[in-house]
Amino acid sequence: MKITDVRARDIRFPTSRERDGSDALNFGDYSATYVTLTTDQGLEGNGLTFTNGRGNELCVAAVQALKRHVIGRSLEGITAEMRGFYRDITGDTQLRWLGPEKGILHMSTGALINAVWDLWAKREGKPVWKLLVDLSPEQIVSCIDFSYITDVLSPEQALAILKKRLADKDSREAEMRRKGYPAYTTSTAWLGYPDEKVRRLCREALAQGWNAFKMKVGRNLEDNLRRAELMRKEIGQTRLLMMDANKCWDVDEAIRQIKALARFDPWWIEEPTSPDDVLGHAAIAKAVAPIGVATGEMCQNRVIFKQLLQAKAIKFLQLDSCRIGGVNEALAILLMAEKFGVAVCPHAGGVGLCEYVQHLSIFDYVAVSASLKDRVCEYVDHLHQHFIDPCVIREARYVAPTAPGYSISMKPESLNKYEFPASVAWQT
Amino acid sequence: MKITDVRARDIRFPTSRERDGSDALNFGDYSATYVTLTTDQGLEGNGLTFTNGRGNELCVAAVQALKRHVIGRSLEGITAEMRGFYRDITGDTQLRWLGPEKGILHMSTGALINAVWDLWAKREGKPVWKLLVDLSPEQIVSCIDFSYITDVLSPEQALAILKKRLADKDSREAEMRRKGYPAYTTSTAWLGYPDEKVRRLCREALAQGWNAFKMKVGRNLEDNLRRAELMRKEIGQTRLLMMDANKCWDVDEAIRQIKALARFDPWWIEEPTSPDDVLGHAAIAKAVAPIGVATGEMCQNRVIFKQLLQAKAIKFLQLDSCRIGGVNEALAILLMAEKFGVAVCPHAGGVGLCEYVQHLSIFDYVAVSASLKDRVCEYVDHLHQHFIDPCVIREARYVAPTAPGYSISMKPESLNKYEFPASVAWQT
Repeated sequence: MKITDVRARDIRFPTSRERDGSDALNFGDYSATYVTLTTDQGLEGNGLTFTNGRGNELCVAAVQALKRHVIGRSLEGITAEMRGFYRDITGDTQLRWLGPEKGILHMSTGALINAVWDLWAKREGKPVWKLLVDLSPEQIVSCIDFSYITDVLSPEQALAILKKRLADKDSREAEMRRKGYPAYTTSTAWLGYPDEKVRRLCREALAQGWNAFKMKVGRNLEDNLRRAELMRKEIGQTRLLMMDANKCWDVDEAIRQIKALARFDPWWIEEPTSPDDVLGHAAIAKAVAPIGVATGEMCQNRVIFKQLLQAKAIKFLQLDSCRIGGVNEALAILLMAEKFGVAVCPHAGGVGLCEYVQHLSIFDYVAVSASLKDRVCEYVDHLHQHFIDPCVIREARYVAPTAPGYSISMKPESLNKYEFPASVAWQT
Repeated sequence: MKITDVRARDIRFPTSRERDGSDALNFGDYSATYVTLTTDQGLEGNGLTFTNGRGNELCVAAVQALKRHVIGRSLEGITAEMRGFYRDITGDTQLRWLGPEKGILHMSTGALINAVWDLWAKREGKPVWKLLVDLSPEQIVSCIDFSYITDVLSPEQALAILKKRLADKDSREAEMRRKGYPAYTTSTAWLGYPDEKVRRLCREALAQGWNAFKMKVGRNLEDNLRRAELMRKEIGQTRLLMMDANKCWDVDEAIRQIKALARFDPWWIEEPTSPDDVLGHAAIAKAVAPIGVATGEMCQNRVIFKQLLQAKAIKFLQLDSCRIGGVNEALAILLMAEKFGVAVCPHAGGVGLCEYVQHLSIFDYVAVSASLKDRVCEYVDHLHQHFIDPCVIREARYVAPTAPGYSISMKPESLNKYEFPASVAWQT
């Protein structure tokens, strides 16, 4: 099956009008650089990278710049040599100067590579998590670019981790099919929501059976304390409360605020400072223990995660399915996290991230970590109606997807309605 | 003076045809995203960001996405509130998701911000280095975004460093005008050059008075040893030899190769591994001392440099004038380096980087470090003929520029000849 064309569309949802997704530093229109791979056999592969509105056109343009590494190749050729395919894209001898493996270029790489996985899974007639689960340890390892991480994880060590999990893989797969993967909700407490709306959304979420809640915190400590008290009052003392600062603090200020917020018993503090600051996260983690530090949604690649693990900077690793360049890089990160005994709780929300992460988390449980301790996968209840095979939550757990692919194909009518800037949604 | 428009042009030079600039991972066509700010008073400001060919169009597009923060503002308004201006650009509540402060978006930020400094300096009738030297310590500090670095450098500490240097600033300025800033050459030993060409270029460089030489090394140790022996034979035992691996090694391999190359007495080893790997550089630095580790040309921002300094990972800090977002961020990095006692030896070469760095290094000496110990500024002899006020080397030192601005304005005929893809150079 030959990939004959790559198309990228600029899809934007005007979420800023309702302040959905608002936090300490971001105020966006949830958007997607939506990629379609066409083949000579009619089958299509889809992938997207999530962006926040303005600048989505830059990711679309980056896909155009990268597509020379995809068009004309056969799916079989790519999947037989996945590491090489990843390196062809990330190692382009001219484009790499613009990264390497970071920012716009790497986010677009994620859309392209995820589209290949979607195509592969559709061809196999399996959801991506099941395709991954059925690959042999050797095949998984052959997908990973170990450059720059061999000092903590060699191919042999990765293989050993995967082989150790083979024995009771089937029972965990059956468990996932039966019960799904545990989730938490971020939908109740965006920073821009008035207190009354937060209260109402907490009550609705409790009624739906949610047991773990994330709230946004910001620069103003008084506001943070007030909102944390409100959240604790609504959800009670025993349910999990996570706090997310979205990078709004310097290291010392983070420590000061977290210590003040500690009386509301946060399970984790997320993105206390710059996503680039490994040593800063380590200093914060040391100062605020036993509260765990979480980060990852803006961490650019495996090298940053390697260091966060080496420095004991995080207790919860929140990889993003797009930013890090797609499934291949996620495999490297899941295996490093397992080696260091750190829980992976992927970042979701935005557009399509919930659809993506359920596959990664289920694979992680079945084939890598074999544990649900300290693990919850993020859920946000926006924009799922635009997907053909949207994620499903039952009793606060992601139901294991069954349709072939990566659950990321969008409805044609949604694509047409929200394409920027010419579509109906943006002209009215 | 009001900025009325921002124009960005895609300028590319077909350097890959001669393998100029070739190294272990890059094989490019030296290019520039060239920005022109027009004003209501006829004066223009220029800035560029250096790229390596393919993908330059993405940086051009990113300038388009950012220009809303520049057009319509007065130069006086910007320069009175430089920190705010920097944050307006880097903190855009939607675009920041694509970085923040890294990759394509930050490289384009560098072109824009440097263009503002060029405009400001032209308006003042001074070269940028002199504009900087004449700003008060308070003004310099007011240009810096201290977010995420206050744990190592507060505004008060930055002020104290600058004030300490006020006393004998004039004598250092006079020295720079008289003698210039020491440089080293990277022109003799690109990885793609055959041995015979390297020999010839070394002899020419020696005749020109060069005393410090950088050679490229690659993945193959045997080749590296052969080329290092050749270099030492040509330049003798007493001149400085630097080695540049351009990120081609993992941590353990870097240590192995540097130990094998140690007998050729390298002064520094540059980019031994991933630019994102602070802890990796620290491990290498510890293992190969007293050979110094150098890095920076692909380090994205002040947060990475902060950590390289905290972790004692580098002996030589090689900031890039474009990648880090321009002059404002360079000021933060120069001051952090001074606090940690690390020598700044900026990255140059490419298109226009030599023109830029002479200003930063001269300012560093006059107003920040007050020392030339272990300091040399990179020089590469390509493409200077396209600049209106090109850098000048005399006796292996950069001659202090005297023309107003940042020395970065290109000749109109060069811009027209090398604009991609429609120009003469690319159609033949």
